[in-house]
Amino acid sequence: MHIYKRKQIAERVKLDATALEAVEAGFAALGRGEVEMPPILSMNIAESNGEVDVKTAHIRGWPRFAIKISPGFFDNPKLGLPSLNGLMLLFSAKTGLVEAVLFDEGYLTDIRTALAGAIAAKHLARADAHSVAVIGAGLQAELQVAALRLVRDIHEVHVYARDHTKAEAYATHMRAHHGLPVTVHTSAASACAEADIVVTTTPAREPVLRWSDLPRGIHVTAMGSDNPHKNELDPTILASADLVVVDRLSQSQALGELRHVPALQREVFELGSLIAAGRSLRSSAEQISVCDLTGTGVQDTAIANYAARLLEGV
Amino acid sequence: MHIYKRKQIAERVKLDATALEAVEAGFAALGRGEVEMPPILSMNIAESNGEVDVKTAHIRGWPRFAIKISPGFFDNPKLGLPSLNGLMLLFSAKTGLVEAVLFDEGYLTDIRTALAGAIAAKHLARADAHSVAVIGAGLQAELQVAALRLVRDIHEVHVYARDHTKAEAYATHMRAHHGLPVTVHTSAASACAEADIVVTTTPAREPVLRWSDLPRGIHVTAMGSDNPHKNELDPTILASADLVVVDRLSQSQALGELRHVPALQREVFELGSLIAAGRSLRSSAEQISVCDLTGTGVQDTAIANYAARLLEGV
Repeated sequence: MHIYKRKQIAERVKLDATALEAVEAGFAALGRGEVEMPPILSMNIAESNGEVDVKTAHIRGWPRFAIKISPGFFDNPKLGLPSLNGLMLLFSAKTGLVEAVLFDEGYLTDIRTALAGAIAAKHLARADAHSVAVIGAGLQAELQVAALRLVRDIHEVHVYARDHTKAEAYATHMRAHHGLPVTVHTSAASACAEADIVVTTTPAREPVLRWSDLPRGIHVTAMGSDNPHKNELDPTILASADLVVVDRLSQSQALGELRHVPALQREVFELGSLIAAGRSLRSSAEQISVCDLTGTGVQDTAIANYAARLLEGV
Repeated sequence: MHIYKRKQIAERVKLDATALEAVEAGFAALGRGEVEMPPILSMNIAESNGEVDVKTAHIRGWPRFAIKISPGFFDNPKLGLPSLNGLMLLFSAKTGLVEAVLFDEGYLTDIRTALAGAIAAKHLARADAHSVAVIGAGLQAELQVAALRLVRDIHEVHVYARDHTKAEAYATHMRAHHGLPVTVHTSAASACAEADIVVTTTPAREPVLRWSDLPRGIHVTAMGSDNPHKNELDPTILASADLVVVDRLSQSQALGELRHVPALQREVFELGSLIAAGRSLRSSAEQISVCDLTGTGVQDTAIANYAARLLEGV
């Protein structure tokens, strides 16, 4: 059994094309019906403003499955600790024996979450998309843009965050570390006006994006909502968009954007099914596409297997 | 963060009165409504005849919660490996940080399962119970008897197992290692005839015990069934017994004995509630009591906290 720490993992696993390929293979297997993926186990620890989620999935034929444990303790910053944490365990799918423990402290989750956004854009955004709007100014606001560069020739970034100071800091950081021109906006509408892709990366409990904010032809990825209380998209967006896609229907209905539009009467696709079918949904440069990502166990099994292969030097 | 292996853990954690007290405290907290315990996460890995269960619980006010991962891969014996395996992780209930990993390979599960049987008998069996019948001849057939000695003055054992050779081997082992007289029987009825307590410890998918097998005054603990396909007790037992108790109603209904009697119309108690209320259900030496144990996350959190305290020398 091997034990790996965050530093080792972060040195080997990068936001790059091979990592994207690994996560995309997970989505494709899900779309082909080759994945066993039980509902997320979730527990609240009210007295510490904490929660813990456990996700898992097995991809038929893969040698190992991962179990990911993600604690989120939101008073941690007061103690000088990060809110999010966690680890992944890799088990042999033949014997059930633990083969590796990845004490990644959430690093692999950050990576696979950013890659899912890139995979959504790869299959849904216009081929000539080059301008990204980001709502939110946290770590995913950075990683989503970095990941999008793997699938589209991104050369301008627009940011809007409720906290203007954080948006300014984000812009400075992105210019310095990613060499991208970044414009700070004072509204989501203004940030989206010039964008081909918009990614919402907030823990919002009320919509941060409205239908009227979206120019024709834009692709929207909503990656923030992952529990029943979170909600980034105004219901009119899901009702009015030309194309609506989610990572997993049952999850989006239980804890993603679909939860907030229970009466929605329209076809909603799963991202994995589109990939598996080699199907391009977008049929014109004018269509508005939306993808809601809640985060799935199959992404964890895919990235953990990929990380272990790199760490073992395979 | 501390990492402990099975050998270290087994050297410190024994089937004794303090371990029993720790697990009983978990049941009592559950009974007082002080436990957050989400449904079990369960995944099948059909191609390897495997499954993996994840259990957790947090006891309000306790410093740590455990997450237990239990793989069961039933073709492992063909490879010279045990079917059951697993580990427990202990997290700070204040910060969500991992504080200990107990690579116990199922040892602590064996212990807390045996202790639950003893706790059930402590609160339900006659005070003068001294004779135990065991149905099955595996590891729990041994541990359940050993644990019962913590709460009752057991001085005779009766065993019945479908495989007579295994029952004989069990008898030899119990005589040698526990100094107990053991009689091997050729039917469950005959084993129960002289017993004050009977424990079923099988993976049976059809009842191994019928109402007519039970003498007046006996206490029955059914500990084998822990998935929807398993079933040790004939429905007439649950319908006819004077007292019916389970570890957790929702679990017994989903994957324990109550699943097989959906139309049962009677009061069913939870073991923790009885302990919390200091309530003795048995009111006569003639009553027949039954307790169905499916195995709960609160037992895991209780035993893992206890084990870590011993290992850390607290």
